[in-house]
Amino acid sequence: MTTVQKEANLKQKLGLFNSHWSPKTVSLFNGHDVMVAKIKGEYHWHVHHDTDDFFYVISGSMRIELRDQTIQLNEGDLYVVPVGVEHKPVADEEAHIMLIERSGTPNSGDAETAAKREFI
Amino acid sequence: MTTVQKEANLKQKLGLFNSHWSPKTVSLFNGHDVMVAKIKGEYHWHVHHDTDDFFYVISGSMRIELRDQTIQLNEGDLYVVPVGVEHKPVADEEAHIMLIERSGTPNSGDAETAAKREFI
Repeated sequence: MTTVQKEANLKQKLGLFNSHWSPKTVSLFNGHDVMVAKIKGEYHWHVHHDTDDFFYVISGSMRIELRDQTIQLNEGDLYVVPVGVEHKPVADEEAHIMLIERSGTPNSGDAETAAKREFI
Repeated sequence: MTTVQKEANLKQKLGLFNSHWSPKTVSLFNGHDVMVAKIKGEYHWHVHHDTDDFFYVISGSMRIELRDQTIQLNEGDLYVVPVGVEHKPVADEEAHIMLIERSGTPNSGDAETAAKREFI
């Protein structure tokens, strides 16, 4: 039998770190990392060529700029950036989010500049 | 370019139906259905042989009974039932959850008795 993962409270996990744009893995799901992140300011334009990018806003607000529109996300909003679509996440004030990406995906879209995978 | 999905507010989506144990699909992600569900009472023991089962509690409380332990989940808690692990979800009072399963997964573990896939 697979080892059972313990439940994770996302707000409790978010209390364990302060860094921005540095997602932390809280669980694994079908070959994906389920992560929480604190974000503030502008991230850079990037694209994932092998995964959709799942965003869920736990608290605060953010927007995801696409080349042809901007997606405004408030608490409780979910948005999936389709694979291959360039996007730029922005949060004017600190926001807390859940992210899901295929395990091994560089958060920046580029292995050289990606945040290192970290479990909490 | 892939058609861009609009953002989904999960609480707004939950306001669109009242049935229990009848997950509704709000988005797609890497071959998975992202769903919301209202649950109340006891579901039956079942197992998914081809997918982990992602539970996130949006409001209320629930528990997931496993054969060797019970996982208590409150608002903001996340739990992934590993593939192949028998489980029985229970909510003493109505709870609202986000579920993610591989697209095509019967929610009951059995195609005969599964709720029909429905987008909202």
